[in-house]
Amino acid sequence: MQKTISPQTLRRLPAYLHYLRVLLKKGAVNISATMIACELNLNDVQVRKDLALVSGSGRPKTGYEIKNLISDIEHCLGYGNGDRAVIIGAGELGCALLTYEGFTEYGIDIVAAFDIDRSMKDTTMNGKQVFSVEKLPAVCSERKINIGIITVEAKDAQKASNMLVENGVMAIWNFAPVHLAVPDHVLVQNENLGSSLVILSKQLANKLGTDQNS
Amino acid sequence: MQKTISPQTLRRLPAYLHYLRVLLKKGAVNISATMIACELNLNDVQVRKDLALVSGSGRPKTGYEIKNLISDIEHCLGYGNGDRAVIIGAGELGCALLTYEGFTEYGIDIVAAFDIDRSMKDTTMNGKQVFSVEKLPAVCSERKINIGIITVEAKDAQKASNMLVENGVMAIWNFAPVHLAVPDHVLVQNENLGSSLVILSKQLANKLGTDQNS
Repeated sequence: MQKTISPQTLRRLPAYLHYLRVLLKKGAVNISATMIACELNLNDVQVRKDLALVSGSGRPKTGYEIKNLISDIEHCLGYGNGDRAVIIGAGELGCALLTYEGFTEYGIDIVAAFDIDRSMKDTTMNGKQVFSVEKLPAVCSERKINIGIITVEAKDAQKASNMLVENGVMAIWNFAPVHLAVPDHVLVQNENLGSSLVILSKQLANKLGTDQNS
Repeated sequence: MQKTISPQTLRRLPAYLHYLRVLLKKGAVNISATMIACELNLNDVQVRKDLALVSGSGRPKTGYEIKNLISDIEHCLGYGNGDRAVIIGAGELGCALLTYEGFTEYGIDIVAAFDIDRSMKDTTMNGKQVFSVEKLPAVCSERKINIGIITVEAKDAQKASNMLVENGVMAIWNFAPVHLAVPDHVLVQNENLGSSLVILSKQLANKLGTDQNS
């Protein structure tokens, strides 16, 4: 069974997964889509559709067995694929991502961060290694890295991207506010933190406008 | 003219804005939707629709005057609303956001970060202030803060959210992987960095699967 799952659904799955794991720890056994929707402030129909896409184990009345649903979502998210990532750019954002605990929860191992400063001495941070960028080729080939995360300044991002691609990385998560030129076989996901905050600010302005007019 | 703009369009506007500003700096005067689409790897029709929603200044053949288009997008994004935000949680992620330059580009001022450790001494970081959380009420009322950013651990997030709401914050950008309970008048946008990385990993697996089958 291989259904196509939309990016919107994919974006919601980790939230379900997190909530289900909390429930399981609390000793709960079954859960309905309606309850999940209610708890996460989501649309009932949407949650039901999402879950039906990833799991065939839901039953009328009892809903889903939490343990099965967790394993179905993990499977769908590729948990256990063994993806390994490196970060280029060991500034504040890079280090925040290096030590962010949320990634292992989804089965992705951030192996190390690299600083573009070649004179930098190797160091560790919360048990994770930070190397000078010279070590990138060795780490990429030894650890079979397939994901690269770019947190350097805009002006250095293309160079960082080239280095990742040259060392066999197939997917790039780009935090630098520039468009990266990559070969066709490489995936790029651009992350713009400014844009997330702008959306919230815009929604707030809309809400205040509506409240004033009503 | 007040059209409803979808979150998907809102999410793309900052990317247009960034690209247009780069063009303007290089001395360009006009731009077509097609050129923007091509440069940012987006769908032509989508970009044309997005721009038509935010600006009436596009003309056949010449396209948009870059200066006007920038100002229309800024207006649409609420640039100049004077939104001011604080961060609760001065760990690595909090400090990365505090010093992230991309926010001022969209007219949002991150005023200060607060650490939940009450014994912490006040300090500064790249010119931005980091206070103990005791100072939150004073800063919120003096600087009219309307946005709060939560970067504390999951277990402290609800407490941080309560403090923000008590001090008049109307919108919360939540990086902690928990569902926050807030009054109806407060907006919450949850940011799950793990989920962004998972989506990239999933797309990579899909792509590799397709390549192997073809």
